[in-house]
Amino acid sequence: MTSTADRAVVVGLGLIGSSVALGLRKAGWHVTGTDAAPERAERARQLGVVDVLGRDPSARLAVVATPVAAVPEAARALLEADESGALVVTDVGSVKAGIVKAVDHPRFVGGHPMAGSEQEGPDGADPDLFVGSTWVLTPTAATAETSFSVVAGVARDLGADVVALAPDRHDELVAVVSHVPHLTAATLMALAADASEEQGALLRLAAGGFRDMTRIAAGDPTIWPDIFRDNASAVLGVLDALRDRLDEARRIVAEGDRQALVSLLERARHARRNLPARAPRPEEVVELRVPVPDRPGVLAEVTTLLGEQGVNVRDLEIAHSVEGDRGVLVLVVDATTAAVARATLAARGYRPAARSLE
Amino acid sequence: MTSTADRAVVVGLGLIGSSVALGLRKAGWHVTGTDAAPERAERARQLGVVDVLGRDPSARLAVVATPVAAVPEAARALLEADESGALVVTDVGSVKAGIVKAVDHPRFVGGHPMAGSEQEGPDGADPDLFVGSTWVLTPTAATAETSFSVVAGVARDLGADVVALAPDRHDELVAVVSHVPHLTAATLMALAADASEEQGALLRLAAGGFRDMTRIAAGDPTIWPDIFRDNASAVLGVLDALRDRLDEARRIVAEGDRQALVSLLERARHARRNLPARAPRPEEVVELRVPVPDRPGVLAEVTTLLGEQGVNVRDLEIAHSVEGDRGVLVLVVDATTAAVARATLAARGYRPAARSLE
Repeated sequence: MTSTADRAVVVGLGLIGSSVALGLRKAGWHVTGTDAAPERAERARQLGVVDVLGRDPSARLAVVATPVAAVPEAARALLEADESGALVVTDVGSVKAGIVKAVDHPRFVGGHPMAGSEQEGPDGADPDLFVGSTWVLTPTAATAETSFSVVAGVARDLGADVVALAPDRHDELVAVVSHVPHLTAATLMALAADASEEQGALLRLAAGGFRDMTRIAAGDPTIWPDIFRDNASAVLGVLDALRDRLDEARRIVAEGDRQALVSLLERARHARRNLPARAPRPEEVVELRVPVPDRPGVLAEVTTLLGEQGVNVRDLEIAHSVEGDRGVLVLVVDATTAAVARATLAARGYRPAARSLE
Repeated sequence: MTSTADRAVVVGLGLIGSSVALGLRKAGWHVTGTDAAPERAERARQLGVVDVLGRDPSARLAVVATPVAAVPEAARALLEADESGALVVTDVGSVKAGIVKAVDHPRFVGGHPMAGSEQEGPDGADPDLFVGSTWVLTPTAATAETSFSVVAGVARDLGADVVALAPDRHDELVAVVSHVPHLTAATLMALAADASEEQGALLRLAAGGFRDMTRIAAGDPTIWPDIFRDNASAVLGVLDALRDRLDEARRIVAEGDRQALVSLLERARHARRNLPARAPRPEEVVELRVPVPDRPGVLAEVTTLLGEQGVNVRDLEIAHSVEGDRGVLVLVVDATTAAVARATLAARGYRPAARSLE
């Protein structure tokens, strides 16, 4: 029998729950699972998303992946039914303040993996869905540190970067980068569809940009009513900001204000091009260890040199020697630019050693 | 020397002009080209986008791929300089009514390939950029039929489907599927970027949906001022419609109107999933020829059988035999489902023969 340390239960086998289950199985866990819809649960079993249907009473980890409204009750029921006193529960809901307040238990850690697709249910599940994505955790003063460590460890095992945020803060941020964009995509798509009923050729003219913009509108609608209810206040604020900005864009077009238009588009382009890349996979980065004299200016010199050569430094730390006069600068750079980085540093007399992080 | 029938000139070597030039070269044409920016022209030459810089006086085809505002003068200059009386001129501008009215010549055909990318200039050029896309042509009463045929043939040689539309109609349609979506993407991106300056973690939470929605905002801003000026009226109308719909979405969220929200999202999903697919590449489809008795119900039986098995029938016709009692049903299906289609039909006693369209 597998040790209880490696046994998990996933409640709710939609796209995210099934992807978590598959990812855990791939990482060696024994995974049980349930879904309120029997046919979906059965489909998950058939596809090997879970080892067995049901709730393993010896599981150490429970992941609640139901619609947002059902999360608090499901999480509390799991904690109450647990006899070991060791079960750690997390969820994957897209709004966090209400859930975290409703559950409020040392062994509950609110979570939100910022990944998804327009696929649905167990059939759309992908064990690598979270690789390189950001997984938000929303611990509170009540959260036990060990619970946080367990959930953060699982998120990292599934390939994600963990970011801890206060629940309210999380909800404000996702209103901007997820909830309002989703509503806007659906609105644009519905507008084009209605116009197309009058003008048949319209949708044949939809090129890649329109397809990209509306792709998320193809996803499962059923999760959204809960999300918009629970995050209404933040969503309304962002919708108001969006309306103000679209009104300004309308003024720019109406007045033919070329300078303001270029300024808006340049600002958007700059921001889009600087959007943080997905966290790299280990094979995409290389660690360079560079012995350096422990004196001011070394860090600036090295990073400036690399910046001038287009080397993207993803991570950086200085390990000081015990003697205090020498140190080692540890840099994580893109694998594609590692050779340039080494050559650049070598040309200045540094002696970088590279190692893969795979 | 190549025959004049295969010689073209491309004026303006940005992303689209360079992609047209590369596609023409790939199709066997001799291509000359110019750009107002000498360094861009030189880059295009280095990359082999054109055979030679300059304007070949014996070219039979000229493609004007400058910014929209420069198209009429460039097109007229080409037609005036042509001594053969056979040069056909087209353009690739994103707004058509003004251009078509300004040039107004039997050998000018307005055009707009509905393809692009967030890449820029000769370095982003791709000879296959137009494969499977829609290429709008906007002939008028003044357009010579032979000119239309030449340009339509070239668009098809580059892999596109040709759709002919009146210039005004084209401009209304692209306001919905291109111009307003672009402005919205830029506005959403700028909104998130500004919010991110206050809240550092924000853009780390940007998952695939946000990335998809804002991708086009990374593109070259310089083409847009002309587009919004020339198509201001249609763009303003669509912006007003978008604002009305976003106001309605705001009401739905504010009132927690679950039914209206699901209805909006379901409508958008249905429309997005039914967005016409890009025309398939030849290697993606297979033609099945199925001898059938020439009687009512055969067509329905075959198509229903295939539909039940998830086979996507992209094209279909019945070739009747001269005797009248037998025919051949010609189906074009996705290559990935051709084997299923054949097995399904064979199980019902049909004898389908498959052939590749490559």
